[in-house]
Amino acid sequence: MKISARNQFKGKIEAVKAGAVNSEVDLALPGGQKIVAIVTNDSAKSLGLAAGQEAVALVKASSVLVMTDASGMRISARNCLSGKVKTLSMGPVNAEVGIEVAGGTVVHATITHAAVDELGLKEGSAATAVFKAPSVILGVSA
Amino acid sequence: MKISARNQFKGKIEAVKAGAVNSEVDLALPGGQKIVAIVTNDSAKSLGLAAGQEAVALVKASSVLVMTDASGMRISARNCLSGKVKTLSMGPVNAEVGIEVAGGTVVHATITHAAVDELGLKEGSAATAVFKAPSVILGVSA
Amino acid sequence: MKISARNQFKGKIEAVKAGAVNSEVDLALPGGQKIVAIVTNDSAKSLGLAAGQEAVALVKASSVLVMTDASGMRISARNCLSGKVKTLSMGPVNAEVGIEVAGGTVVHATITHAAVDELGLKEGSAATAVFKAPSVILGVSA
Repeated sequence: MKISARNQFKGKIEAVKAGAVNSEVDLALPGGQKIVAIVTNDSAKSLGLAAGQEAVALVKASSVLVMTDASGMRISARNCLSGKVKTLSMGPVNAEVGIEVAGGTVVHATITHAAVDELGLKEGSAATAVFKAPSVILGVSA
Repeated sequence: MKISARNQFKGKIEAVKAGAVNSEVDLALPGGQKIVAIVTNDSAKSLGLAAGQEAVALVKASSVLVMTDASGMRISARNCLSGKVKTLSMGPVNAEVGIEVAGGTVVHATITHAAVDELGLKEGSAATAVFKAPSVILGVSA
Repeated sequence: MKISARNQFKGKIEAVKAGAVNSEVDLALPGGQKIVAIVTNDSAKSLGLAAGQEAVALVKASSVLVMTDASGMRISARNCLSGKVKTLSMGPVNAEVGIEVAGGTVVHATITHAAVDELGLKEGSAATAVFKAPSVILGVSA
């Protein structure tokens, strides 16, 4: 598969919890992180998602926020991957930030140029990539 | 209505399936494609969404991924529209890709400049626009 | 907390409605606006979300659409904040638009450069920021 998603995380499904319309799927990454995805029940069924299965979590860079300091606040986003800024590519409006997390995975986020300045991001800065469960697309071998 | 969504697909509602919080809505496009949207039950009720009704699916270009080769992989995203790259507009960080699908509809995606390079996208390339059902906003005549 | 989300709206939770997988949360802003967020039940529970509580709604600029004329159409997006364009920052592909709403809050949206041209946006234009409930991340004091 060749797809534009900057973030393609391979892992193993740990749990699938079905609701009325959507299912919540937990995916364990080799680096020890957990990714939570929300997909429709129809997708979960047609892909045959089940615990123990290998899957890929696809996340667009534009769905990812960057947090540098969580002090005093807890947030609802289910996916928070902490690491260090490895790459910074600046455009006039947007910027792409690559955050290397445990296990060597790099999480890519496109945020505004203004946000990079305000957060004081530079290579080596500690940073956390944050994204919501419904932003994750799951892929499984055909 | 004038709204910034690059993608405004007119179609006819085929089905509305209500869950506890969200409803899944199927929209048939004139070109034969089907769009799946997830909206809250409150929205479905206040808009009076029902099978047979005309509606517009609004999708931000930034919610759309571009896939060039699905071999070996099936994905959870409910919306996959295949066609050929018609337009490419490159910025330093992001790029806008227009994919013409059956029926002449052009689907717009903003992806990273790096993804365009990696996928080898150019005018005329076969490509599939991919987006999740919760990325769709529905509009109906007032 | 320091996070890249361009939009950080402080308010008070008015209602939490739990579904099978997701919960819908209503947040009242000081300017009189209401923000609707969809978060997973696990998040709602772990954050202890309840009516009366202070919370922050985080919304990425890339999740926000800009509407200049709603005539003839009603849309499913739960969050529509009307005001006037205060700032416009143009890049080659994308642009960042700041819309000042009642109470002085500025809502930031990144939309395509082409959309700014088509909508004829300029400083002082009337405009509405539109975003879906699942695009909202909620934060509460630790």
